[in-house]
Amino acid sequence: MLTLLFTDRPQRWPKFEAPLRAALDAACIGPYRLSDSADPAEVDYIIFSPSGGLRDFTPFTNLKAVLSLWAGVESIVGNDTLRVPLTRMVDQGLSEGMVEWVTGHVLRHHLGMDQHILEQDGVWRGHVTPPLARDRQVAILGLGALGQACAKMLVALNFQVLGWSRGPKSIPGVSCFHGEDGLREVLAGAEICVLLLPNTPHTEDTLDAAALRLMPQGAVILNPGRGPLIDDDALLESLNSGHIGHATLDVFRQEPLPPEHPFWSHPRITVTPHIAAETRAATTATVIAENIRRNEAGEPMRFLVDRDLQY
Amino acid sequence: MLTLLFTDRPQRWPKFEAPLRAALDAACIGPYRLSDSADPAEVDYIIFSPSGGLRDFTPFTNLKAVLSLWAGVESIVGNDTLRVPLTRMVDQGLSEGMVEWVTGHVLRHHLGMDQHILEQDGVWRGHVTPPLARDRQVAILGLGALGQACAKMLVALNFQVLGWSRGPKSIPGVSCFHGEDGLREVLAGAEICVLLLPNTPHTEDTLDAAALRLMPQGAVILNPGRGPLIDDDALLESLNSGHIGHATLDVFRQEPLPPEHPFWSHPRITVTPHIAAETRAATTATVIAENIRRNEAGEPMRFLVDRDLQY
Repeated sequence: MLTLLFTDRPQRWPKFEAPLRAALDAACIGPYRLSDSADPAEVDYIIFSPSGGLRDFTPFTNLKAVLSLWAGVESIVGNDTLRVPLTRMVDQGLSEGMVEWVTGHVLRHHLGMDQHILEQDGVWRGHVTPPLARDRQVAILGLGALGQACAKMLVALNFQVLGWSRGPKSIPGVSCFHGEDGLREVLAGAEICVLLLPNTPHTEDTLDAAALRLMPQGAVILNPGRGPLIDDDALLESLNSGHIGHATLDVFRQEPLPPEHPFWSHPRITVTPHIAAETRAATTATVIAENIRRNEAGEPMRFLVDRDLQY
Repeated sequence: MLTLLFTDRPQRWPKFEAPLRAALDAACIGPYRLSDSADPAEVDYIIFSPSGGLRDFTPFTNLKAVLSLWAGVESIVGNDTLRVPLTRMVDQGLSEGMVEWVTGHVLRHHLGMDQHILEQDGVWRGHVTPPLARDRQVAILGLGALGQACAKMLVALNFQVLGWSRGPKSIPGVSCFHGEDGLREVLAGAEICVLLLPNTPHTEDTLDAAALRLMPQGAVILNPGRGPLIDDDALLESLNSGHIGHATLDVFRQEPLPPEHPFWSHPRITVTPHIAAETRAATTATVIAENIRRNEAGEPMRFLVDRDLQY
């Protein structure tokens, strides 16, 4: 009998219980107990969200693995009490949601939609031919599963896609760069820049004042990745100076973003409330169940976190 | 020596002359005269735009063909003085621009972007999980070159795509319907409805009051096709009643849309100034030059208009 502990905000349990049971039954893992509370010494697997508040894994003396419901594992990866394998979420639904948000907001800025949405002033401005995507450079910082999925869709739309990652990568249709020099080159061409890096000590403030200065005049920033990737004060300064044209931000150093935060009222910032890649119960449950099945069958689990790389 | 007459608004000639010469030279059609004025009796080919004002083709006694710069040929197809083959524009750049506009505005409405663009009120609404594209039905009325290109991209984004055309068609990943019964079925499922039909007597007022009533509560209409496809008064009525959620319109019965027209000030209408598929000089010039080369070589021209079907 396996004991599976679900730890997340209390209101998430009713949303996840049925999809998890359905996925576990479909994976044929044998008899199990699934609950949002259990005797720690009996727990085999923790289905984990940082929002659940669990920080001390010491009492879980028979734990086999921690399976994160989130793609970002920065809040748990450095936890010294965690001595068992950790997997992160790479979920088709999450990836689809991210591709939709990124593609939508890239096209919004590419097409200059805000002018039409905000300024219906009766003046017909038909003489300006908008550029085609094939004449627009979009940079994606971070070429993991989500970055690659977004890059693929933007390539299909004919954008000139520049990609950057820590180590070298090769992706069809994407001009790939890596390392510090590569980052400077990508930023210099980034008319629209999408941040999809993991949150690690190496990536904090990737867009600081110096990086923002490298970007082209009027550049647009999209951040559906992690709040700390941007130096907030430097961003505000470069928006106010007119160098950066717009920022559409889905993630923040503090969430929910406080009502008095200057991002809300800034005319060149659009806030979306961490909706780009919402964890969806049905699709994530399938990933969790498959990893339990694999581990019980002695097969390697998918999406194992490398504790040195921190993602 | 071929004589080629360019007829469009005067300000378009400087924009088109160099790209046309480059494309004609690249196509190796031999010696030619290209101008925006010529003795009608000497003209071999007319490079035609409805904006140029030419309506009487009688004086062009040696004309071989009329090559339209526009995809829509409704203003010329019924012209009795035109007795030579007519081609319409099917241009990669035009198709790309259309795919970008349609995909962008479909995603805008799918993601509910307007709320974030218009209402930055400091309230974090993170609890609402937006639906995925795979759970959203988008209908495309008109499955010509542009409709098919848009359908393909929306399928790649996982939307449930319904397509409708006059006669039966089969497109991978698209649920295709045709005929009057098929139209009713497609409209009933159209959460977002894209109009890409040609403008013919058969298609006028395709979205009339009865058709609008068939659409789901809150449905969104995108019209990058032709203005007369919609009954304007019926649209205003169904927007005011709250049945139709929004309309984003790029084409109108009168263009430029007059400043006093109620579409401009309606809170549920977005006007874009006929920019979805702008004719671009370089890409259209290539299509024109290739058709002249073909006709001179005795090969069939591409994109010939069927005068009975009127497109």
